[in-house]
Amino acid sequence: MKDEILAAYHRIAPLVRQTPLEHSAELGAYLKLEHLQHTGSFKFRGASNKIALLTGEQAAAGVVTASNGNHGLGVAAASRARGIAAEVFVSSQVSDFKARRIEEMGARLHCAGDDPLTAEVAARRAAGESGRVFISPYNDLDVVAGQGTIAVELHRQLPQLDAVFAAVGGGGLIGGIGEYLKAVSPSTEIVGCWPENSPVMYRCLQAGSIVEVAERPTLSESTAGGLEPGSVTFDVCRRAIDRGVLVSEDETLRAMRRVLEIEHWVIEGAAGVAVAAFLQEAPRWRGKNVVIVICGRNVSAEVLNKLCGK
Amino acid sequence: MKDEILAAYHRIAPLVRQTPLEHSAELGAYLKLEHLQHTGSFKFRGASNKIALLTGEQAAAGVVTASNGNHGLGVAAASRARGIAAEVFVSSQVSDFKARRIEEMGARLHCAGDDPLTAEVAARRAAGESGRVFISPYNDLDVVAGQGTIAVELHRQLPQLDAVFAAVGGGGLIGGIGEYLKAVSPSTEIVGCWPENSPVMYRCLQAGSIVEVAERPTLSESTAGGLEPGSVTFDVCRRAIDRGVLVSEDETLRAMRRVLEIEHWVIEGAAGVAVAAFLQEAPRWRGKNVVIVICGRNVSAEVLNKLCGK
Repeated sequence: MKDEILAAYHRIAPLVRQTPLEHSAELGAYLKLEHLQHTGSFKFRGASNKIALLTGEQAAAGVVTASNGNHGLGVAAASRARGIAAEVFVSSQVSDFKARRIEEMGARLHCAGDDPLTAEVAARRAAGESGRVFISPYNDLDVVAGQGTIAVELHRQLPQLDAVFAAVGGGGLIGGIGEYLKAVSPSTEIVGCWPENSPVMYRCLQAGSIVEVAERPTLSESTAGGLEPGSVTFDVCRRAIDRGVLVSEDETLRAMRRVLEIEHWVIEGAAGVAVAAFLQEAPRWRGKNVVIVICGRNVSAEVLNKLCGK
Repeated sequence: MKDEILAAYHRIAPLVRQTPLEHSAELGAYLKLEHLQHTGSFKFRGASNKIALLTGEQAAAGVVTASNGNHGLGVAAASRARGIAAEVFVSSQVSDFKARRIEEMGARLHCAGDDPLTAEVAARRAAGESGRVFISPYNDLDVVAGQGTIAVELHRQLPQLDAVFAAVGGGGLIGGIGEYLKAVSPSTEIVGCWPENSPVMYRCLQAGSIVEVAERPTLSESTAGGLEPGSVTFDVCRRAIDRGVLVSEDETLRAMRRVLEIEHWVIEGAAGVAVAAFLQEAPRWRGKNVVIVICGRNVSAEVLNKLCGK
C-alpha cells in the first residue's frame, strides 16, 4: 500500500494539517500531535482522501456515512472542503455537541435507531437506494491510505524511528501507518494499543479471523465497537502490527491526566491508551526514538469530567 | 512599525509555527490558536526575532533574560534554535515544571531572589557585567515586532477583520498586533482585555503615564506584574489600543471552562480574559469577523486545578 499512501499524502496535502511531532522529555517519547488536526482527530485524513477520489458524478450525488463521532466530523468537514453534500447517520446516543458540530459543517444529520449498527445499516441502505457512495470509518482501503499519510509525515520528521505506539479500533490508523513504515522503515516496531475493556482487533488477530469480542465500557470511546465482518483492515493489521499491549482504564486515565498536566493537552481516551501502553515499557525505550500517536482530542463531557477528577 | 513587523515575519518564518485561525460557531468568533505555538505561547515569536537580530559577536556571547514563565521558555527555545547560550534568571517563585522545561531546552537557570523584580535586576547586572544582551519580555521594540507577526498571519488568514481581542500585560502582544493592523486595516478595532484584578497598562493609559497600579491575584498569571518605567510599549499601546474591557476572575474562569468544554483546549488565564471580554459584548458582534487571540496554554498546576473545578 506504500504507493497508495504516498499518493494520498500528495492528494490531501492542501487540505490537512501537517501536525507537529514534539519531543516530550517528561515522557521520553515523541508525540505526534494529531489531535491538532482539523476536526480534532486523524479521521479527517481518511475522509479527505476518500472524498478527493470520488468521480465528478459521485461527488455530485453526495456521500453518506454513519458515525456518532470523529469519522462523522471528518466526512462532514472533508465534504464541505470539496463542496459536496454529505449525510451523516447517527444513533440516538450521539452527543448534542457532536451532532451540532456535524450540522455546523453543513452536513445533513439523520438520526436512525438507538445503536451504531442500526444507524450504519440505515445509512448503507440510504446510500444504495440513492446511488450515493457510503464512506466506512475504516473498512475501505482509501480511508486507510488517508490515515497512513501520518506515517509519511513521521518518516520525514524523524527518519530514524524505533517504534510507533497507536491505539487500535477498526484498524485504519495503525494499519495505514504500519503499511507505510513496513515499506520505508522495516525495523520500526509497530505496537498496537488496546484498552483491556475493548480489545476487539487484538482478539481477532489472536483468533486468526474476525470474531465477536465482548466489550465493557472504556474511556477510549473512539476505538470501541465490533469489527465489521469481512473488514479489509483485518489483513492490513495482520501485516502491520508487530505486537499488542493492553492497558487498564486506570492506566489510561492516569496517562490522560499526565499529558494534561505536563503538556496542557486534553487528549482522547484512545490517545491515552497509546500513552499508557508506552509508559508500561518506557524504561526499555530510553534513548530510542519512539512515537506515540495522539490521535484526537474529542472527549465526551463524561470523559472530560473523569479527566478533571469529577 | 509596520515594516519592522513585516521584516520580522519573514525573518522568523522558518522558526515559528503559523498558527491556525479557527472559527468557533459556539462562541461566534475566530480563535487565533497561538497556544499551539512552540513553547505553548506567543512569546516564542518576540524572542525569536530578537535573537535572530543579534550580531555574530552578540550571539557568540550569549543572552540573558529574567522570567519565571513564557518569556523564559521563549528565549530558551529561540536560543537553542540559533545554537547560542542563554541564561534565564528566575525568582524562587518559579514552578518546578517551568524551571525543568527551561533547562531541558539547554538554557542555564539562575535563581535570584524571591520576586520577579529582584531576578530582573540581577539579570540586567549580569548581562551588563559580562557584555551580554539582556532580552526584556516586552520593553524592546524588536520583541514587540516579533509578537506583531501574529497580525501579519491574521491579515492573510482573514483580510476583512472587524475586531481583535487580546489580553494585555506588558503590552508587547497587543502593541505589535495593533501597530501592524492600524497600518494595513485601520478600521479593525483593537480591544485590550484586562483582569479587573490587574489592570496595569489600562490604568497607565488612563493616567497618561506609567504609574504604579495595585494588583490582586489573578488567573491571568502571564499578564500580571507592574510596567517597567520608561517602557517603549506605553506609547505603542497608546497608538494601538482603541478600547479596553475589564473582566472579573469569575468571567475568566467561566470562559476558560467554556473553551475547555467546546474546543477541548486548555488555555491560559490571559487567553480566558480575552474570551471573557469578547463574551461580554458577543451579541453586538454577531455576523462580524472578530478574532480572539488565544495567547498560550501554560497554566500553573494551581490554575489547572481551578479550571478542573477543584
